[in-house]
Amino acid sequence: MEKLQSASRDELLALQSTLTAQYEAVKAQGLKLDMSRGKPGREQLELSREMLFMPGDESTVIDGMDAANYGVLEGLPTCRRMFAELLGVKYEQIFIGGNASLTLMYDTVAKAFTNGLLHSTCPWSKLDKIKFLCVVPGYDRHFTICESFGIEMIPVQLREDGPDMDAVEELIKDETVRGMWCVPKYANPAGITYSDAVIDRIARMKPAAPDFLLMWDNAYCVHEFDGDFVPFRDIISECAKYGNEDMVFEFASTSKITFPGAGVSCFACSEANMAHMKKMLKAQTISFDKLNQLRHIMFFKNSAGVLAHMKKHAAVLKPKFDMVLSWLDREIAPLEIASWCKPRGGYFVSFDAMHGTASRIHALCKEAGLVMTEAGATYPYHNDPNDSNLRIAPSLPPVVELDKAMELFCLCVKLAAVEKLLAE
Amino acid sequence: MEKLQSASRDELLALQSTLTAQYEAVKAQGLKLDMSRGKPGREQLELSREMLFMPGDESTVIDGMDAANYGVLEGLPTCRRMFAELLGVKYEQIFIGGNASLTLMYDTVAKAFTNGLLHSTCPWSKLDKIKFLCVVPGYDRHFTICESFGIEMIPVQLREDGPDMDAVEELIKDETVRGMWCVPKYANPAGITYSDAVIDRIARMKPAAPDFLLMWDNAYCVHEFDGDFVPFRDIISECAKYGNEDMVFEFASTSKITFPGAGVSCFACSEANMAHMKKMLKAQTISFDKLNQLRHIMFFKNSAGVLAHMKKHAAVLKPKFDMVLSWLDREIAPLEIASWCKPRGGYFVSFDAMHGTASRIHALCKEAGLVMTEAGATYPYHNDPNDSNLRIAPSLPPVVELDKAMELFCLCVKLAAVEKLLAE
Repeated sequence: MEKLQSASRDELLALQSTLTAQYEAVKAQGLKLDMSRGKPGREQLELSREMLFMPGDESTVIDGMDAANYGVLEGLPTCRRMFAELLGVKYEQIFIGGNASLTLMYDTVAKAFTNGLLHSTCPWSKLDKIKFLCVVPGYDRHFTICESFGIEMIPVQLREDGPDMDAVEELIKDETVRGMWCVPKYANPAGITYSDAVIDRIARMKPAAPDFLLMWDNAYCVHEFDGDFVPFRDIISECAKYGNEDMVFEFASTSKITFPGAGVSCFACSEANMAHMKKMLKAQTISFDKLNQLRHIMFFKNSAGVLAHMKKHAAVLKPKFDMVLSWLDREIAPLEIASWCKPRGGYFVSFDAMHGTASRIHALCKEAGLVMTEAGATYPYHNDPNDSNLRIAPSLPPVVELDKAMELFCLCVKLAAVEKLLAE
Repeated sequence: MEKLQSASRDELLALQSTLTAQYEAVKAQGLKLDMSRGKPGREQLELSREMLFMPGDESTVIDGMDAANYGVLEGLPTCRRMFAELLGVKYEQIFIGGNASLTLMYDTVAKAFTNGLLHSTCPWSKLDKIKFLCVVPGYDRHFTICESFGIEMIPVQLREDGPDMDAVEELIKDETVRGMWCVPKYANPAGITYSDAVIDRIARMKPAAPDFLLMWDNAYCVHEFDGDFVPFRDIISECAKYGNEDMVFEFASTSKITFPGAGVSCFACSEANMAHMKKMLKAQTISFDKLNQLRHIMFFKNSAGVLAHMKKHAAVLKPKFDMVLSWLDREIAPLEIASWCKPRGGYFVSFDAMHGTASRIHALCKEAGLVMTEAGATYPYHNDPNDSNLRIAPSLPPVVELDKAMELFCLCVKLAAVEKLLAE
């Protein structure tokens, strides 16, 4: 079959009948497949198995302090140093948090509301309206944080090289626009990495809001699965070039390096922001889990250890992404009914189906036993104006299941497209 | 020496001279002693050493889910069950958090400000004034949370059997009084446990504020060091008797059971509160550290395992408290210049020095190398109206150091009292 749009009605009807039969056959297998979240698979968890025995017999005293007792709000120095190296920021700019960078992001926004940020004239809770720019397609949990605080979300289109900066520069003239979510490297879900030029434009933004909050979620900072680690600009020093160093908070974690939900998170920010945040963090906790920081230090030794470890993840992930892409190339590409990214890192393949079919694809998949991230989830308010984007998360299923899942997915994509064309 | 108040000026001068000489001798030793915080000592940390090897070779799958991967917002069922048993609440009422109950407390107050509690008419941030009742002497970190959110603190005196409920019942008629901090068992620092009668009066409070927040910090719920575990009323069901079940959040953790800062925390609340909180918590995290929950389950098996473990802590702590009390009984009691509690659990001896001498005692101790919690720290705004209360935390120093510390402390108490009497 060639390009689907040029098929005749009869050809479409014939195809629909074939596809429906194939779909019913797959459905009859009673599959239970999950490609909904960026969860590492079992094989990836095994890569960190040694950590499950740590610290073991080793002393819990490190950097002159006992990791097994209270204290050291900002985290173990060795752990801070490791993250500083990975992110290319200064040691003083790193704060080690608990098991999830998502929590650090939520807390940063929460503190803006309850106390205000360093350059806030008042806590955000005293303002009538707070808006955030949300790069789309984007990460649903960022949007959930906004919804939780009643922040109005304004979508900004992601392009090949980063957010549409013309739109951003226009939108930040509005003082009620107080922040922006970015996943700058191997974006969730689009897989692209912001170009130096876009990063430069971001770094020199002059938002009307004095306390504009650039949320730089560097979730996939070392998550290449195809090729070597690609160094990435340090957003804090980029911003500093334009006197903007207090505008940005960067976030990262080992959730997809060691154990999801049992890793170590961090944020990085200017020294002035750090002092401001620590005043508030001191009220929130005595210290985060330093034993888990110690495990990470023992396991990795240093940042080079992390990068070496990521090669092992890559060896597991690459075949999975290859499989996804080969199914799409084989089954969908010739029909010209969809487009998708070909990422070299991160956790997702962003899939743009024929407009108006994403929800239907999701429903068809679900009915046959394949759970995908919901259509619309990659947009604020679940509102994908084209009903087109779907996020494929190939990490969790074993290869053999992924094969099944992609077979089914491709069937559903085609079936939904044929239905759509027949209805036109 | 008999009662100091009846000593003549000459006797006081002579005593001052003796004490000063003794003090200078101790000071010359260049001590470095720390009785400032309720930090478990090294010997206590060793009690949980086995946990440092966990989960080790054991499967990380428990309760049908993988503790090493994302998921299960409310925590592992087995872990929830263990805490439910310890606190005498229902399984459904337990939420397992991260490494610190302090963070859960802070977050609960933060959520009241940003989103409002279940019965709030609006987020607290929209209200002009929020006041909390603070039982005094009390826990400084509770007060720090209030200060962080700009909550006005009203001190309420702690008596032998709990807070002064006549005062509480009067104060809660003010609608701006929105909450109250309690450490109901082995209170920090007073060591007393609330009586059933006081608990009943607390449970049937009818505050003017519809969303009054009773912060029930049960930090020392199983922390008897003298005798068997003493069962304690479940505040949620006590409140439920009066239709008040949504008024209270209870907090606990294993910080002083396993590893301080690397334990597991929880809150307990009514099912309706739980549903309300989970809506907000879902935006804050995917799940807390379940590998650490797993370690705790493997180590303790169940609540009986926790109680058995607490006997080992008791064996370490009892001699330390005995030493503190024996020094005070021998050196201070005959002079009738101070009073103190004789707790059977918890982490502190609350010491009430001769009025107007606490700051001086603190300074004298510090000068000679003994760090104590600051005078006034047990009162909101560091304002102890009598400059009398000091918190003795004997857990951290080894016994031999504690002996030195108490010798010095007693010297300072006497010296400050003599100075005070001479100045009158």
